[in-house]
Amino acid sequence: MSSKYVIGVDYGTLSGRALLVRVSDGAEIASAVHEYTHAVIEDALPATGKKLPPDWALQIPSDYIDVLKKTVPEVLEYSGINPADVIGIASDFTACTVLPVTADGTPLNELTKFRDNPHAYIKLWKHHSAQPHADRINELAHSRKEKWITRYGGKISSEWEFAKALQVLEESPDVYHEMRYWIEAADWIIWKLCGNYVRNVCTAGYKGIYQDGTYPSREYLEALNPQFSGFVTEKLEHTLGELGSSAGMLTKEAAGWTGLPEGIAVAVGNVDAHVTAAAANAVNPGQMVAIMGTSTCHVMVSDVLAEVRGMCGVVPGGIVSGMLGYEAGQSGVGDIFGWFANNYSSADYQNQAKEAGIDIHTYLSNLALKSPVGAHGLVALDWQSGNRSTLVDHQLSGLIVGLTLATKPEEIYRAIVESTAYGARKIVETFNQSGVPVKEFIAAGGLIKNKFVMQIYADVLNMPITVIKSAQGPALGSAIHAAVAAGAYKNIVEASAAMGGVEDRKFTPIAANVKVYDELFEHYNKLYERFGHDEMMHDLRSIRDAALLNGSK
Amino acid sequence: MSSKYVIGVDYGTLSGRALLVRVSDGAEIASAVHEYTHAVIEDALPATGKKLPPDWALQIPSDYIDVLKKTVPEVLEYSGINPADVIGIASDFTACTVLPVTADGTPLNELTKFRDNPHAYIKLWKHHSAQPHADRINELAHSRKEKWITRYGGKISSEWEFAKALQVLEESPDVYHEMRYWIEAADWIIWKLCGNYVRNVCTAGYKGIYQDGTYPSREYLEALNPQFSGFVTEKLEHTLGELGSSAGMLTKEAAGWTGLPEGIAVAVGNVDAHVTAAAANAVNPGQMVAIMGTSTCHVMVSDVLAEVRGMCGVVPGGIVSGMLGYEAGQSGVGDIFGWFANNYSSADYQNQAKEAGIDIHTYLSNLALKSPVGAHGLVALDWQSGNRSTLVDHQLSGLIVGLTLATKPEEIYRAIVESTAYGARKIVETFNQSGVPVKEFIAAGGLIKNKFVMQIYADVLNMPITVIKSAQGPALGSAIHAAVAAGAYKNIVEASAAMGGVEDRKFTPIAANVKVYDELFEHYNKLYERFGHDEMMHDLRSIRDAALLNGSK
Repeated sequence: MSSKYVIGVDYGTLSGRALLVRVSDGAEIASAVHEYTHAVIEDALPATGKKLPPDWALQIPSDYIDVLKKTVPEVLEYSGINPADVIGIASDFTACTVLPVTADGTPLNELTKFRDNPHAYIKLWKHHSAQPHADRINELAHSRKEKWITRYGGKISSEWEFAKALQVLEESPDVYHEMRYWIEAADWIIWKLCGNYVRNVCTAGYKGIYQDGTYPSREYLEALNPQFSGFVTEKLEHTLGELGSSAGMLTKEAAGWTGLPEGIAVAVGNVDAHVTAAAANAVNPGQMVAIMGTSTCHVMVSDVLAEVRGMCGVVPGGIVSGMLGYEAGQSGVGDIFGWFANNYSSADYQNQAKEAGIDIHTYLSNLALKSPVGAHGLVALDWQSGNRSTLVDHQLSGLIVGLTLATKPEEIYRAIVESTAYGARKIVETFNQSGVPVKEFIAAGGLIKNKFVMQIYADVLNMPITVIKSAQGPALGSAIHAAVAAGAYKNIVEASAAMGGVEDRKFTPIAANVKVYDELFEHYNKLYERFGHDEMMHDLRSIRDAALLNGSK
Repeated sequence: MSSKYVIGVDYGTLSGRALLVRVSDGAEIASAVHEYTHAVIEDALPATGKKLPPDWALQIPSDYIDVLKKTVPEVLEYSGINPADVIGIASDFTACTVLPVTADGTPLNELTKFRDNPHAYIKLWKHHSAQPHADRINELAHSRKEKWITRYGGKISSEWEFAKALQVLEESPDVYHEMRYWIEAADWIIWKLCGNYVRNVCTAGYKGIYQDGTYPSREYLEALNPQFSGFVTEKLEHTLGELGSSAGMLTKEAAGWTGLPEGIAVAVGNVDAHVTAAAANAVNPGQMVAIMGTSTCHVMVSDVLAEVRGMCGVVPGGIVSGMLGYEAGQSGVGDIFGWFANNYSSADYQNQAKEAGIDIHTYLSNLALKSPVGAHGLVALDWQSGNRSTLVDHQLSGLIVGLTLATKPEEIYRAIVESTAYGARKIVETFNQSGVPVKEFIAAGGLIKNKFVMQIYADVLNMPITVIKSAQGPALGSAIHAAVAAGAYKNIVEASAAMGGVEDRKFTPIAANVKVYDELFEHYNKLYERFGHDEMMHDLRSIRDAALLNGSK
């Protein structure tokens, strides 16, 4: 095993990364990144220039294939290993990122007749314009007392398979009727690698409403829209695959793209957050792994089935086979920091950061640290990108209160970082109150490098925070799944113990800060309950949309 | 009269301005400005470096004398007129700006023993740390059912004479006991000019709780604090003078400072906002004059006595002798625009503005105008500097709701401008609902040059806005009062008609915008009532103050 290797490929929002890992101990031998040529398509279709409405976010399937073609040969070359020593490949994806394909897996946007139709493209996880469809899905589920709705904290997200599909049906029936499969990108890329379409139980459960061996009923779907009654049977359901199992063997074509040996194991698809638990070796009940980046996903396994308000879902085997997997999330975290730091830092600040040779985030953090906790007198709601957990409402928006003429940018910056920590605390408290206690908080993702952010989280949560050892958690997590699919380990728990882990250092709560944050969190919580349940933010969104439509000046 | 002149001196927050005006027609012959050497003292005493707590704002009396010494000789020189043709001088001041003086008018900060005592200095109108004292004044007044409290919209402001004096007594009894008079700067400067201390009825009424011929009773004051029982009789009350009447003759010393003839008329002191009604010739019932600058004052005469929630006061003769004068205000307007534009505009924006040769306000406004009204989806509360009317609470703070990752600085800038327009609308509606209808809205002050702001106000208020002709309204208003004090006109109404006026152009509401603003104002109003009456903003202020005190990091 010490001379065998696996490859994990992590598909993020803007780029894909391949990581070559030693099977025996998880040593990371080489990695390579490729940025998607078309990035996130939010304004107009690159092929035709067609304008998109607000809250749309699309991607192009060929960008994903390019990642395989570019990065895998690169890691093979960098590492200098013999490609014949690679025994498996696995990948993880953003989710729910979903696309319409033909029976042979051809994405509909690649058909000439649909080039100019936005609905033929991949709907990225953060495509947020299916909210009206999600609202109807939820309303009907509650009025019909559908059993599955409570497994999703009472709300199906506009980001998921059903809401996005219903939007396609109602806004572009031609695309809807043409597609054979409505498929997760996570599964599509595996199909491309091994030639088999296998639905992974993770996205099927979390994003596809697969619960207790079945999907929402034909009657339910028909009540939603008579044209939608066959959605499950005609477009969605397909062979399921357990996480860490093999979906098939690498095809000759994919071997050609990658330089890997034809016929090696290709693991069933998976999701970036969910594979990270393995990379952190945090696969026991009560270990919450937070993958903190532009957004945050929280995953935790448990042996207790409970209903947790606003969680994204509970799925058997959804993180580790044989255990219940819980998922929750915050739809905006690092991207809120970036939004503020990049757009609202004055020339003075930007110049001083440049002179000091530090980035604007570090500059703002350093300034913020000069004042004690609470001295800004601010509380913010972290909903600039909506709220995933616990409210599951992407029409919510950000708020800040406590502004004075003396309020400085570094104070707002800190308040925004804190607001996301309060959001995390709200999720942790909701799990605790629901009988699924969070005993450890393990951080992964890009933000773990930011000590300012991590200490605020420790203080706000009043929990020590341990940090994943790998800087490439999802890719390592995928590699671990590849190792299991290739038969090198018996299961994910065993493979994680050998290949994953956390750092020795911890971020420890500072008592004086905890006390102040307890007070501030009370106010966050009041704002949360108040604005999360009245109509103001929805009305402001409607006014905005009507204004953009009418164009009154 | 066509060869006679008067001088108006306008004391603002940061500078003083003299204006030489022709008596016959109000022609503005020459003006000069002098910036106060010590500006606003908010951090530390310049004499000793002693640090000030938050929410303090002080000034130095000698800065005001310097204005006379610099600007009056300048306007005489620029104009080339014969100084002997100047028949009177008058001044107006920010209010309530108030200081402790000895029996001969010496400011206590000029006594060596008090140099290091912040309470010996002038408390500028925007000194906001006497809120706890104002709270007690209000609570006691309501519990004792003091008749005068309703004349002030139910609340005495922390900015006014009683709250600031009570703060002096309780925080620095030595200063309190040493002072003979607690005097408005408006009256102190007149004393310096003519050698007589005359309390003008305007500040006595609006800021000094002089109502129905009397001040708050000894019993009331004793209940506030036994040491405070003699405040009115020992420190405050003094001969009163009507607006536009003469306080005395220019002294030899002041003639030496100014180059004006000894013995000319010196008008009774007055307030910047209140004299502006005369400058706009808007001295009839229902004509609301809004003096829009860093903050906004609203003044209006009426023949009806009514109780208007949160107005600053109703005072007989407080604007024009013989009529009831109403005052209301917004404690932050232009300074909120400045706070945002100066601190939160990115380097890109600042560079582009510089390249285009426009200031950052114009740059942001131009960008904002590219989108229709309401397209930002934002509503803000304009309380960054507290709320004067209708809530009279300087511990309130600013709020913004509706933020998304797509929100741009020009959108927040516009939302902030709009929030102040909503604040103005709230005041107008409160007057309308209280039986003192606002029939015309006349704008004065520095912001009238800003067409972007003025159009938003017209659209939000759904009223045409006329604009004062003079670019130096308060100074012209003072000059009009000087002319009356010198006997050139029978009264202010007559003098205003001859010397004041508005421009021909109007800002007219645009129907499509009015409709959207009606919707947005509903949300402003909800936030207003919600955050104006719960404890969150007060609690955040307390957390802030405790953090600054404890210094927990």
